[in-house]
Amino acid sequence: MSSQDGDPATTTGASDAATPVWDLNADLGEGFGVWRLTEDDALLPLVTSANVACGFHAGDPSTMRRVCERAVEHGVRIGAQVSYRDLAGFGRRAIDMDPTELRDDLTYQLGALDAFARIAGDRVRYVKPHGALYNRVVADEEQAAAVVEAVHGYDPGLPVLGLPGSALLRRAAAAGLTCVGEAFADRAYTDAGTLVSRREPGAVLHDPEAVIHRTVRLATTGTLDSAHGVPVRVAARSICVHGDTPGAVDLIRGLRTALHEAGVTVVPFC
Amino acid sequence: MSSQDGDPATTTGASDAATPVWDLNADLGEGFGVWRLTEDDALLPLVTSANVACGFHAGDPSTMRRVCERAVEHGVRIGAQVSYRDLAGFGRRAIDMDPTELRDDLTYQLGALDAFARIAGDRVRYVKPHGALYNRVVADEEQAAAVVEAVHGYDPGLPVLGLPGSALLRRAAAAGLTCVGEAFADRAYTDAGTLVSRREPGAVLHDPEAVIHRTVRLATTGTLDSAHGVPVRVAARSICVHGDTPGAVDLIRGLRTALHEAGVTVVPFC
Amino acid sequence: MSSQDGDPATTTGASDAATPVWDLNADLGEGFGVWRLTEDDALLPLVTSANVACGFHAGDPSTMRRVCERAVEHGVRIGAQVSYRDLAGFGRRAIDMDPTELRDDLTYQLGALDAFARIAGDRVRYVKPHGALYNRVVADEEQAAAVVEAVHGYDPGLPVLGLPGSALLRRAAAAGLTCVGEAFADRAYTDAGTLVSRREPGAVLHDPEAVIHRTVRLATTGTLDSAHGVPVRVAARSICVHGDTPGAVDLIRGLRTALHEAGVTVVPFC
Amino acid sequence: MSSQDGDPATTTGASDAATPVWDLNADLGEGFGVWRLTEDDALLPLVTSANVACGFHAGDPSTMRRVCERAVEHGVRIGAQVSYRDLAGFGRRAIDMDPTELRDDLTYQLGALDAFARIAGDRVRYVKPHGALYNRVVADEEQAAAVVEAVHGYDPGLPVLGLPGSALLRRAAAAGLTCVGEAFADRAYTDAGTLVSRREPGAVLHDPEAVIHRTVRLATTGTLDSAHGVPVRVAARSICVHGDTPGAVDLIRGLRTALHEAGVTVVPFC
Repeated sequence: MSSQDGDPATTTGASDAATPVWDLNADLGEGFGVWRLTEDDALLPLVTSANVACGFHAGDPSTMRRVCERAVEHGVRIGAQVSYRDLAGFGRRAIDMDPTELRDDLTYQLGALDAFARIAGDRVRYVKPHGALYNRVVADEEQAAAVVEAVHGYDPGLPVLGLPGSALLRRAAAAGLTCVGEAFADRAYTDAGTLVSRREPGAVLHDPEAVIHRTVRLATTGTLDSAHGVPVRVAARSICVHGDTPGAVDLIRGLRTALHEAGVTVVPFC
Repeated sequence: MSSQDGDPATTTGASDAATPVWDLNADLGEGFGVWRLTEDDALLPLVTSANVACGFHAGDPSTMRRVCERAVEHGVRIGAQVSYRDLAGFGRRAIDMDPTELRDDLTYQLGALDAFARIAGDRVRYVKPHGALYNRVVADEEQAAAVVEAVHGYDPGLPVLGLPGSALLRRAAAAGLTCVGEAFADRAYTDAGTLVSRREPGAVLHDPEAVIHRTVRLATTGTLDSAHGVPVRVAARSICVHGDTPGAVDLIRGLRTALHEAGVTVVPFC
Repeated sequence: MSSQDGDPATTTGASDAATPVWDLNADLGEGFGVWRLTEDDALLPLVTSANVACGFHAGDPSTMRRVCERAVEHGVRIGAQVSYRDLAGFGRRAIDMDPTELRDDLTYQLGALDAFARIAGDRVRYVKPHGALYNRVVADEEQAAAVVEAVHGYDPGLPVLGLPGSALLRRAAAAGLTCVGEAFADRAYTDAGTLVSRREPGAVLHDPEAVIHRTVRLATTGTLDSAHGVPVRVAARSICVHGDTPGAVDLIRGLRTALHEAGVTVVPFC
Repeated sequence: MSSQDGDPATTTGASDAATPVWDLNADLGEGFGVWRLTEDDALLPLVTSANVACGFHAGDPSTMRRVCERAVEHGVRIGAQVSYRDLAGFGRRAIDMDPTELRDDLTYQLGALDAFARIAGDRVRYVKPHGALYNRVVADEEQAAAVVEAVHGYDPGLPVLGLPGSALLRRAAAAGLTCVGEAFADRAYTDAGTLVSRREPGAVLHDPEAVIHRTVRLATTGTLDSAHGVPVRVAARSICVHGDTPGAVDLIRGLRTALHEAGVTVVPFC
C-alpha cells in the first residue's frame, strides 16, 4: 500500500508523531424532501469532514444547499457521498450496472453537489462512496474503476475516502488520486483488519464508552483490538462516526472531548 | 424592454445589419435510460446551441455526457435546459412549488450538466427553462425570480435564453444577467407578438415550406406575420427549432440551407 | 348538500342522537424506504380509519403491507390516501396535469394498496386525497372529476372522505358515491365553516387542551367556534387527527378518552 | 414438479398431438410518460398473451390502462410483467435486495396492474418477471422464493410464466402454482436446452426466416436445434417474441402465418 493509501506511519502521524492528527467524518444531509435522518445541525460543529448525500440515495437539493452553507460556516470540508440511484433502498442495495453508466451517475452527483459547495464559498473537497457502493468497491474491480474514473475525470486533485486495502483505494492510488483510509469508531474488526460483516453478531458496537475508548486508542496508537482481542493496525487517517442512531450526537461529543484530552488534534484531512 | 432583452435592432443586427446573424437552438438529450426522443446525432451538426436536458424532465447522465461530447466536437454551445422534477410528465406539468426549492432544484441541474460540459472541454454557456417551467415564468414573478436567482447564484455571467417580454427575461435583465430572446420557427404568433396557445387550432405550423419561408423572413427582417397576417417584430436573436417530430431533421436542414442562401450567418449567440 | 354529503343531522347522528357516533381518521404509512414520519404503531390503536399512503407522495410497498396488516388487527378501516406523483414534495405541490392522467395515477395507487389490504384480510374501504390534491379538489372541478372517475371506475361502492362543501364531495355525490365529510381537530375555521388558510396566523391549533375541548364540543353538538368565536356547524362524521407532530400521539390518546367520557362512540364510518 | 410445469409431452400437445397448441407472448406497454418503446397497437392483434409493464421498469398508469383495454378487445390475456424498481436501468440491472422488500414491490405492481385489467373487464391472468429479475430468479433461490410468495399471496390461482428449469418455476410448482414454460423465438440455445448468454456472439438471432423456421419446428415437434446443431427439447407451451426491435412486427406477423400454415393453433395458455 502506498503512502497515499492512508498509511498512518507516513501520512497522518497518527501513531508516531508527538501530536496525533485525525479527521472525523460523518454522513450528512441524508434526508429527502419532508423526511429527515441525520442531525445535520448538531453534527456539523463536531466533525471535520461532511459526507454530503448527493440526491441519489438521499439528499434533496435544498438540503444539499443548507448542509454546504453550514459546513462552510463551521470550517467542515464538503465531501461528495456518491451512491447508486436508489432512493427506495437508501443506496444500500448493490446494483449490477454498466460501469460507464455508474461512472456517469457519479459524475452527475459530483457536479450537482459542487454547485452548492461553490455557492457556499468552498467546493467539493473529496469523494466517498455510500452504502452498497462503498461495500461493492472493496472488491469489485470494475465498479471500483468506474468510481476512480468519475473522480479523476471530474478533478484529478480530489481525494478518495474509503476502506484501507479496498480495490477502490488501490485503483485510485494507481490512477494518481490521493487516497485517505478511514476507520470506523463503532464497528468490530477481524484479526485481518477488515470489518466484521454486519450480518455477524457484534458487528456494530453500541456501548458508547467502549466506542470512545477504542477510538482514542486507535487515534493515539494506530491500533485497535479485533473482535477476538488481537491488536490490528488500521491504515487510516480519518475516523467515521455515524450520526443516524439514537445517542449518536452525545457519543460523538464525548469522543471529541476524549480525543482532545488524549492530545489528539482533530482537523480536516484536506 | 432593455437592449439586454434581445432587441434585434441593437443587439443582434438581425434586421438592419448587412449580414444578419442568428443562433439556432434545439432541445437535445431528451431521452432517459432505454428511451430515446430527440435525434441528437442528426441535430448537432445543424444547430448552434443545444438545450441539454439535465435529468429532471429527461436526460440520464450517460446521455448528458454523450451530448456534451458531441456538442463540443461540433462547436455547438451547451445550454442547461432546466426543468421541474417531473419525469412522468416530461416537465410539461406546472408545479406550484416553493420558489427556494425550485431555485435549488435548478442549481442542482446546472451543476450536474456543467460537470459533463467541463469534462467534454467546455462548460454550460447559458440556461433555458424547459416546458411548463418555460411557460410558467412568462408571467409568474415568483418562479421567474427563482430561475434568475439560480442562474445568478451559479454564475452571473451565464445568459438566459427565453421568451421576449417574459417575466423571466425582464427579471434576469434587472439582475444584470445577459438575456437572449428566441423566436419559434414552427409556432403561430398573435398580433401582439406572443405565441398562440397550443390549445388553439393552428398554433403549431406543420408545412415545412411555410416554416422555412417565415423563418427566413424573420431572420432577414426581424419581422414575421401573425396568425392574422399582421406583421410583428420579434425581439429575438435565436431561433428555436424542434427536433422531436417526424421530418424535423429534414426541415432543419432545409432551414439552414435557406438561411445560408438568404445571406444569414448562423452562429452561436455566445 | 345531499345527505350523502356528510350532513350530521341525517347520516351521522353526531348532533341529535342519544349517542353521538364519530370516526377518527389519521394519515399513516407516510414513510419511504429508510425514512419514517408517522408513528404508525402508536396511532393504529387510537384511530378508526387509516389513510394509508400509496407510494406516490410517501409509502413504500413494505410499509403499506405492514400498516394494512396492523390496521386489520386493530379493526381499523384502510383508506387509500391517493396523491400526485411527488415524493420530493411529499404531495404538497399542486400539479397542473391532464385529468385523465391524474385519474389513471389514482387508479394505480388504489389497486396497489388494495393488494396489501386484501392480503391482510380486508380491502380498501374508502378514498381520501392527500395534501395538495386534497386542497386542489376543493375547487378544481376538472381534477375533482378525475378523482371521482378513478374511485367510481375502481369500485362505485367506495366512499370518498373529504372536505364538506368541496367540489370533490359534490361531484362524488352526483356520481352516486357515498360521501363522508371530515372536520379537523387542530385547524381553525372561518365563520363560513371553511378552513382558515395555513398561511394565516392561528390556522393550526397547538394547545392540546383547546384541541380536545373543541373536538368534544363538535362531536357532541355538531358545532364548533370559528376563529372569531362564531358557532359554525360542520357537516362531518369523521374527525381528522394529525400524527406527524410532536406530542400528537398523547393528544389523540387524550382526545379518545375525552370523547369516551363525553358519551361519544368512536367507530369506523364504514 | 407437476405436469403443469410446461412439459410439452403432457401439457401442450406441442409435439405429439394432432393439433399443436401454443401461446405467443410479448412485452407490451414499455413506454413511460412521453417515451414509447413497444409497438403496442401493432402487436396486440398478433399475440395471445401480453406481458404488461407495471410501472417499476416502464409503464405509466395511462399506458397500463390503454394496453389493458386493447388487450381485452383483442382477447389477449393480461400478464403482470413485474420488475425491480429501476426506471433508469429499464429493470435490466440485478439488484441485491431484501427478499421481503422484493416480494412487496411485486405485490404492489400486481395490484396496480390488476386495477386496470379489472376496469378493462378482465383481470391479471399470469405473472412474468422482467429483465434482470427474470434472469436472477433462474438461479437465485431467495429472490425466486420472493416472486413465488408475491404471486401466491396475491392469488394462488395465478400462473407463473418463466424459463423452463429455472428456480422460479421449480419453486412456483412446489408452492402449488401453475407453471408455464416459455421458449424464445430469437434466442440461441445451448445443447443443454438453456439460453446462450447475451454476451456470447450469436446469442440473438436476427434473420427473420431462420427465426420463423426454428419456431415452427419447435411448435410442431417440441424440439429446436442448439447453437451447435444438436436437437434439444424445450419444455415450453408459450413462445416469447420481442416487439422492440426494427422489423419485429413484420417478423411476428410472418411467424403467425407460418404457424397457421403448419397447423399450429395459437391461443392463450390460460
